[in-house]
Amino acid sequence: MKNAVKGDIIYASSPDKFEIFEDGYLLFENDKIIGVTNEINDDYEVIDCSKKLIIPGFVDIHIHAPQINNIGLGADKELMDWLEIYTFPEEAKYKDVEFAKKPYQKFVNKLLNNGTTSSVVFGSIYNESTEYLMDLMDKTGLRAYVGKVNMDRNSPDFYIEKTQDSAKNTVKFVEDTIGKYKNIKPIITPRFVPSCTSELMTELGEIAKKYDLKIQSHLSENRREIKFVNELHPECNCYVDVYDKYGLLRDNLNTVMAHCVWTDEHEMQMLKSKQVMVAHSPYSNGNISSGISPVSKLIKNGVDVGLASDVSGGHEIFMGKVIVMASILSNMRWVHIDDTYPQLKFEQLFYMATKGGGKFFGDVGSFEKGYKADFLVIDDDSLSDSNDRTVRERLQRFLYIGDDRNIQSVYVDGKKIK
Amino acid sequence: MKNAVKGDIIYASSPDKFEIFEDGYLLFENDKIIGVTNEINDDYEVIDCSKKLIIPGFVDIHIHAPQINNIGLGADKELMDWLEIYTFPEEAKYKDVEFAKKPYQKFVNKLLNNGTTSSVVFGSIYNESTEYLMDLMDKTGLRAYVGKVNMDRNSPDFYIEKTQDSAKNTVKFVEDTIGKYKNIKPIITPRFVPSCTSELMTELGEIAKKYDLKIQSHLSENRREIKFVNELHPECNCYVDVYDKYGLLRDNLNTVMAHCVWTDEHEMQMLKSKQVMVAHSPYSNGNISSGISPVSKLIKNGVDVGLASDVSGGHEIFMGKVIVMASILSNMRWVHIDDTYPQLKFEQLFYMATKGGGKFFGDVGSFEKGYKADFLVIDDDSLSDSNDRTVRERLQRFLYIGDDRNIQSVYVDGKKIK
Repeated sequence: MKNAVKGDIIYASSPDKFEIFEDGYLLFENDKIIGVTNEINDDYEVIDCSKKLIIPGFVDIHIHAPQINNIGLGADKELMDWLEIYTFPEEAKYKDVEFAKKPYQKFVNKLLNNGTTSSVVFGSIYNESTEYLMDLMDKTGLRAYVGKVNMDRNSPDFYIEKTQDSAKNTVKFVEDTIGKYKNIKPIITPRFVPSCTSELMTELGEIAKKYDLKIQSHLSENRREIKFVNELHPECNCYVDVYDKYGLLRDNLNTVMAHCVWTDEHEMQMLKSKQVMVAHSPYSNGNISSGISPVSKLIKNGVDVGLASDVSGGHEIFMGKVIVMASILSNMRWVHIDDTYPQLKFEQLFYMATKGGGKFFGDVGSFEKGYKADFLVIDDDSLSDSNDRTVRERLQRFLYIGDDRNIQSVYVDGKKIK
Repeated sequence: MKNAVKGDIIYASSPDKFEIFEDGYLLFENDKIIGVTNEINDDYEVIDCSKKLIIPGFVDIHIHAPQINNIGLGADKELMDWLEIYTFPEEAKYKDVEFAKKPYQKFVNKLLNNGTTSSVVFGSIYNESTEYLMDLMDKTGLRAYVGKVNMDRNSPDFYIEKTQDSAKNTVKFVEDTIGKYKNIKPIITPRFVPSCTSELMTELGEIAKKYDLKIQSHLSENRREIKFVNELHPECNCYVDVYDKYGLLRDNLNTVMAHCVWTDEHEMQMLKSKQVMVAHSPYSNGNISSGISPVSKLIKNGVDVGLASDVSGGHEIFMGKVIVMASILSNMRWVHIDDTYPQLKFEQLFYMATKGGGKFFGDVGSFEKGYKADFLVIDDDSLSDSNDRTVRERLQRFLYIGDDRNIQSVYVDGKKIK
């Protein structure tokens, strides 16, 4: 049987414009979109969501699950201090899978309730709790890449691995989880250059290649961090070259690098030529004083950029808020730093939070034929006012002032999971 | 009878540090604070809010009531276009007091539910609906200055006044409302220099003086606006001098000017010497691409700065979010523009959103003896995690990720209004 959801449908198939079908039908069969139309025949079983907005599920391409307890705390620190004081002590607790159960359930609920159907997730350095998280995400019906984190240097005694243990546990993690779930997949996750020796990075590059895995990490986030990387790797020209040298820039949309606040021309060229995706994390960049990423410049130069909450450097899981923050920081960059590149437009930002980031997953984040049937039903009645508003305005208003209370239903692969 | 509220009490009597009384008592008699203590005798009737946070009510020193319907819309425009396309057509509807009733009720409910006990409010150019709003705020029990807006040039045909009508209606508005309410007071409200002729500004200055009224307006928000002001007033050196020349900078904390994004040394000196308060409006400055105000520099130079939502240029009424946005923009200014002045600290920002802005009202925004008994009871249980958190951390978390759902009760003048 084919299915149709009736409602006010809006999505961005390109960064330039919305496709809008007021009182339209989103058609799907099993886990795949058939298309969007204003008229249907009797072949379809209709779910009536008239007057509701129907939008693609959000895609968050960089988020740290074991930082969920710290959300909303410590934003008055800078990156390196924030890691020492808040982050590492918290992540270390995930050695105990019993401890992990409650916060990981909260993490999964938050993603679900905020309509983030696809995410790229950092776990902790511990296999057991990371695999527990994957089980939970699978049971909940979400789509994700999840990584066991690697750290074998410049980390506190209570949260560090030996190089060979780190590599060995990564192989075990991959073999335990690869092919185990339909929509939850392992990803290679060196924390960032300061926490990984050259030896470990080399091993991780080889594991990624052997098992054909994607890779996630951090790049050029903060000035102190970049200086530290340059000191650690005099054999490389710059930060991005370290990842490249040790085989961690897998090309063709197989690598996501978070932040890229201080990306220069060379780094931009590398990201473009390798087709590395950038996870723009505006809240985190603002909170811990990293800076404003040159997102428009990256995009104009052919780099793929998606949006990310970066919990808990960022404190907002709801991707609507992330869109707003990306817009504001882009405006401020345009006013104060560089007006050569335009401000990010609303269409572009919504694209980045859906189809743009969705590219990392394949056919995710749009309502074009063949895309995964991942969508949200938004009840924006509580946000309405005395005026008639267009579907575009209603979407904007939901993203700006709505929240999880407005997300009525969540579908992944055509199945209702909330 | 004297009253005491038992709970985890936190407030900022100075910008540098919090006063914290875990499991303490906030004491008040009638509408005034007596003090805060950890032990009490039998003279007090105790309201038990154990485990809840008790904080001063928020103070929002710049907000536009008739823009409430537009909240979350139009943030992809710049100031002058945003006024033309979204703002003026909406405000013009408030000629009809019947139309005004529903959105003004919504406006008042939003303030109440978000714990904004004191606010400085722009109405529309219409007396009747502005007075209706004041009645409503009075009945709800809020504290506010509310202004009938003045506009007699460079405004659309459908939303403009004749100079003499504008002045005459202002006198009527003042005489209708002065002394009418305990906590709701009229304020003189020239929209901004571009919308007011020199003649009207002169008249408004005289009315303010005659009736001893406070004044609110906008200053140095956007580069195009500033250029326009300079063209309109070749007889003045700069924007702030226009207000000064026409008698609209009443000194001694009697004037509030919103924005001050592009304030230079001269303007800063004027604001300081006249003791004009600045309403820092970070969301609006970000949304409509005005820029990042040099808040730390203003403060270090002795200018009083409070925080403002600036709805609907800003889309967040909750002052917790405004604090966060002010923090992020301050961080970005420090990283990218000027690291001579420090980032705004959390204590400072909370002070600005309570006692700092509260100075405009007199003894408002603190729990020191003699201050108004305006306070909020915050139930942050839904935000808690597996870790013990300090009262300071709980406050930070509430401001970052809490919302109206966590504001359990609201008190003004010692009376529970929610």
